[in-house]
Amino acid sequence: MIDFMEEAFKEAQKALKKDEVPIGAVIVKDGKIVARGRNSREKSQNALKHAEIIAINKACKRLKSWRLDGCEIYVTLEPCPMCAGAIANARISKVVYGAKETTSEDNLCELILKSNRLNHKPKIEYRENKFCKDILQDFFKNKRKK
Amino acid sequence: MIDFMEEAFKEAQKALKKDEVPIGAVIVKDGKIVARGRNSREKSQNALKHAEIIAINKACKRLKSWRLDGCEIYVTLEPCPMCAGAIANARISKVVYGAKETTSEDNLCELILKSNRLNHKPKIEYRENKFCKDILQDFFKNKRKK
Repeated sequence: MIDFMEEAFKEAQKALKKDEVPIGAVIVKDGKIVARGRNSREKSQNALKHAEIIAINKACKRLKSWRLDGCEIYVTLEPCPMCAGAIANARISKVVYGAKETTSEDNLCELILKSNRLNHKPKIEYRENKFCKDILQDFFKNKRKK
Repeated sequence: MIDFMEEAFKEAQKALKKDEVPIGAVIVKDGKIVARGRNSREKSQNALKHAEIIAINKACKRLKSWRLDGCEIYVTLEPCPMCAGAIANARISKVVYGAKETTSEDNLCELILKSNRLNHKPKIEYRENKFCKDILQDFFKNKRKK
C-alpha cells in the first residue's frame, strides 16, 4: 500500500532541492494520487504557489470539477489559512497533515475547517511525522546560519 | 479620480453576465489598477477561481514579486477564508470591501487578517456599497426562482 504522507514528503524534498520552504502535498481519490504539489513561492514569485493550492488546481483540472468530494489531501505541514480555506472551498473530504505549525498562537487552520460559516467541513487528522518536521526545521536552521 | 470600488463592481457585472456569482476585485498600486479579477468558479470548474485569487495571481505576475507591499485590494464582497489568507500571504497593505458576508456566524475574514499568527496584517475597511450588495442578493433571488 502506498504511504501517501511519504509521497507528500517526496514533494517537499523536491521543493528543498529548489531552495524553497520544503512543503509538499498529494491529493488522493479512491486510493490513487490524482494531483501533486510542492511549494514554489520563491521561484515563481507568486504568493499563491503553496503546495496545497498547486495540488488543488491540478486536481480540479484533472477531475474537471471544482468539487473534490471524496478526495483526501495529504500535506507535510498544517495548512495556512489560505490553503485551509481552499481545501474547504473545494469540498475536500479529509486533510491529513504531518507537522504542526510551530508559530501558531491561535489555530486558524482548525478554526477555518471547523467553522459553521463554510458550507463544508473536511475531517482533519494530525499524523505526526518526524521527517516532515525535521526537513522544515533543518531548512530554517541552515537559512539562519547563512 | 477613479472610484476603485466601482471598477471592482464592473468586474462583478462581467461575472454576472457569465452566470457566475457576481463578485469582482481590483488591485491598486500608486493610484493605478495593476490587476483585475472576477469570480469564474463555474465556468472554469476550479475552486480557486475567486475574484481575489485571480487578481492576486495577475498582480504577482505583473509586478514580478510575491510581495504585494503597498498594494490595496478593492473587492465587492468580504473575502472568504481562502482569499483573506491569500491577501495576508501576499502582504497586501489594505483590503476595502463593499458588502458583508451575510451568512457569517464567526467573522473568519477579520480573524485571519488580524491574527498574530500571520507575518502580515493588512488594514481592513468595510465601505458599504448598495450596488455590491444588491447584485448578489438579486443573483441568488433569481437562482431560487428557477
